[in-house]
Amino acid sequence: MKLLEALHQILPNDRVTNNETVLDQHSSDESYHTPARPDVVVFPENTEEVSDIIKLAALYEVPVVSYGLGTSLEGSMIPYDKGIVMDYSLMNKVLEIRPDDFLVKVQPGVTRKQLEKELKSHGLFFSVDPGADATLGGMAATNASGTTSVKYGIMRDQVRDLEVVLADGTIIHTGGMAAKSSSGYHLNGLFVGSEGTLGCFTELTLQVHGIPEKTMAGRAAFHSLDEAVSAVIGILQAGIPVARVELVDEQSMKQINLFSETDYPEIPTVFLEFHGNEAGLQQDVAFAKEILHDLNCRSLDFESDTAARQQLWEARHNAAYAYLHNFPGKKQMVTDVCVPISELAGAIKDARAAIEASGLDGGIVGHVGDGNYHILLMVDVNKSADIDEANVVNEKIVAYALDRGGTCTGEHGVGVGKAKYQEKEHGKALEVMRKIKKTLDPADILNPGKILYDKKIHS
Amino acid sequence: MKLLEALHQILPNDRVTNNETVLDQHSSDESYHTPARPDVVVFPENTEEVSDIIKLAALYEVPVVSYGLGTSLEGSMIPYDKGIVMDYSLMNKVLEIRPDDFLVKVQPGVTRKQLEKELKSHGLFFSVDPGADATLGGMAATNASGTTSVKYGIMRDQVRDLEVVLADGTIIHTGGMAAKSSSGYHLNGLFVGSEGTLGCFTELTLQVHGIPEKTMAGRAAFHSLDEAVSAVIGILQAGIPVARVELVDEQSMKQINLFSETDYPEIPTVFLEFHGNEAGLQQDVAFAKEILHDLNCRSLDFESDTAARQQLWEARHNAAYAYLHNFPGKKQMVTDVCVPISELAGAIKDARAAIEASGLDGGIVGHVGDGNYHILLMVDVNKSADIDEANVVNEKIVAYALDRGGTCTGEHGVGVGKAKYQEKEHGKALEVMRKIKKTLDPADILNPGKILYDKKIHS
Repeated sequence: MKLLEALHQILPNDRVTNNETVLDQHSSDESYHTPARPDVVVFPENTEEVSDIIKLAALYEVPVVSYGLGTSLEGSMIPYDKGIVMDYSLMNKVLEIRPDDFLVKVQPGVTRKQLEKELKSHGLFFSVDPGADATLGGMAATNASGTTSVKYGIMRDQVRDLEVVLADGTIIHTGGMAAKSSSGYHLNGLFVGSEGTLGCFTELTLQVHGIPEKTMAGRAAFHSLDEAVSAVIGILQAGIPVARVELVDEQSMKQINLFSETDYPEIPTVFLEFHGNEAGLQQDVAFAKEILHDLNCRSLDFESDTAARQQLWEARHNAAYAYLHNFPGKKQMVTDVCVPISELAGAIKDARAAIEASGLDGGIVGHVGDGNYHILLMVDVNKSADIDEANVVNEKIVAYALDRGGTCTGEHGVGVGKAKYQEKEHGKALEVMRKIKKTLDPADILNPGKILYDKKIHS
Repeated sequence: MKLLEALHQILPNDRVTNNETVLDQHSSDESYHTPARPDVVVFPENTEEVSDIIKLAALYEVPVVSYGLGTSLEGSMIPYDKGIVMDYSLMNKVLEIRPDDFLVKVQPGVTRKQLEKELKSHGLFFSVDPGADATLGGMAATNASGTTSVKYGIMRDQVRDLEVVLADGTIIHTGGMAAKSSSGYHLNGLFVGSEGTLGCFTELTLQVHGIPEKTMAGRAAFHSLDEAVSAVIGILQAGIPVARVELVDEQSMKQINLFSETDYPEIPTVFLEFHGNEAGLQQDVAFAKEILHDLNCRSLDFESDTAARQQLWEARHNAAYAYLHNFPGKKQMVTDVCVPISELAGAIKDARAAIEASGLDGGIVGHVGDGNYHILLMVDVNKSADIDEANVVNEKIVAYALDRGGTCTGEHGVGVGKAKYQEKEHGKALEVMRKIKKTLDPADILNPGKILYDKKIHS
């Protein structure tokens, strides 16, 4: 209560609240993870306010959890230790666009679609496209990626600089505006993906790209999942520079058709996209078609018309929401491993078997150009058998990936869902991570219990 | 002396030495920085030996400095605090090539040209190409880059995993083999560029690329430096995907001709390269030619013949050595700032003025596609006036870059030469770096005094 009074002294009344509805709105993410309410939600408007809030949190030794739009899939922003939730919805401005430098400065609450809109008139686009219209602060916090990372890289590759408020309220910059640097330690890389456990982002300088001269997209359908995966590997190994290459299995094609009112063939499908100049693309697409034919592609459609392309990707983007819509009342558990490409065919086969063994409804979609794929599993969170089955699938998939040099999370982050796999994945390196956390946040007030395994939460 | 005895107990006699000639060989780099001898040089053959050596160093609180081939330009591996120099020349094996995963595992002493040779038969290449035939361990330690980073990224972008021995001898892995990951903190990024101050690299897993179907290279010569820079910016902003774009000024073209026995026009020149498929390149090159013509290009030559291209890039790569060869007895001071592209024209103009004001011989070459350029200044290290003038130039150039959001070092690293600029560049973030160093190397035995400003050395 003293904290609440203190917060009221630095923020106007309407930006500090313990209203039950607002607390509820900030207690859950888009996944199956158990919700938990914070004590108070605050709405800072600028960096100095964020710093002042964190100084109070430090003084009262109360947790601070950053909140963008709550689109986490691993409970990264659920305040299990209560305390303050910092909601960035009022810090939602695109501060500067520097077209000549292919850079943009934004506040953490800007969403990716909002940025896309503002960039368009400059002939630019921001490449990272997770399924959700997430905030850029949240995307940096979890090191998000999406369908285009096979060409343009992941969130970490786009971050040139972060303004960060540390656990004692100090404001730092982790990088600069130069395209490359060998100066100091690489704090950009360290803070991206740290999920609010090392500091709170108050400004992001991000790399953007020129809209390509020409884009062509295609859909290749296959008799079997195995053939679809072989086709992806064939295209990658031929060195054709794909901008997107996505796998959607039979079950997920059905859900997409049902939700998007499309009539795509309900068999394993590879969605492809190529970016470049007109002549280069014609050659790339011709070569890709040849490979796809040789690898038993059953039907093949290419589109260069913008509307048709957008519809195609919209459908792919909505896969996860399609399941949620088509199974009302159920929640979703999404696996997120990433494996070396040479292990992809085996991994996908293993994944299909795991879904079938579970008896749950679900399918496979994935950014297979990176070796990253998701199992979308529908669970009734009130049935412990469902949760148990889903956990068994996750355990199997993660073990398979880790045994082959892969990772337990390609793009969703660790949150609480993947914390239990950190020791197996990182071994003694986990102790290095713990030391870094301890030296930068000795009182453990920044999003406690996330990423680094914590018995309080996981027992 | 006790340390020496202890080292002799874990290594055979011929791999522990305090022979004066060997100590001298490990006392200097390729730059103007003052040499300093270590107490002893060791030649480990495997990770366990590196760990044992570091454990002894920890026990006796003696510095350990990693040494690849001594090609640093900032004194990164000069042992100013004496102690042990660890020479990786016996850890020089390519351990594994995984063509399907576009990955290679190497020991730290493998050089880039050695790797290039081994990759060729697989249709693969490693993209990072600093001027020197440096070791990959050294290149990771300084986060090196080169002419191709504008397309393929810098050293940090290629590192998928490092095996690292920490200050207490613990062996960790900083990453894995997956193309992307959101698991744990990004230790790959933190250790790359840490110049041996956080741990010693004993194995590197690196991303490699398929050799492009087609490569075309060109030389565009201009009446003035200003026009040459405008042309580079024009090409970048048109969105033509260059694989290399290098600027060489009039003075440096002269030195290159003298050294390489070429007869390129001795005026400001832009070297370009494009990678892709045949049809795409024809279109890219045609568009580039149009832009270059519009921007007053005086002469333009394109080559797709392999031998001619190699000669062209060989000449560019040898620019720094050309100066050293043509000014016998002198050493080289090389600036290394990197600025946002929109600041490049002003920066190059400022650089030219600074060279002229100094009265020293020198020129400008640069990876201008990234906004990174070098002033090569020839100094007589026995004339303090030369050193003073060179330092004045460096100070001016760095101040210009930092005032515009740039960095004091784009690719050479901090070592001792750029340590004095860390505070201005990183501000309060430097304290975060110091905390990380302190928690991972509390006794400061790993390459002490490098990167983080240390009065002992810099006073």
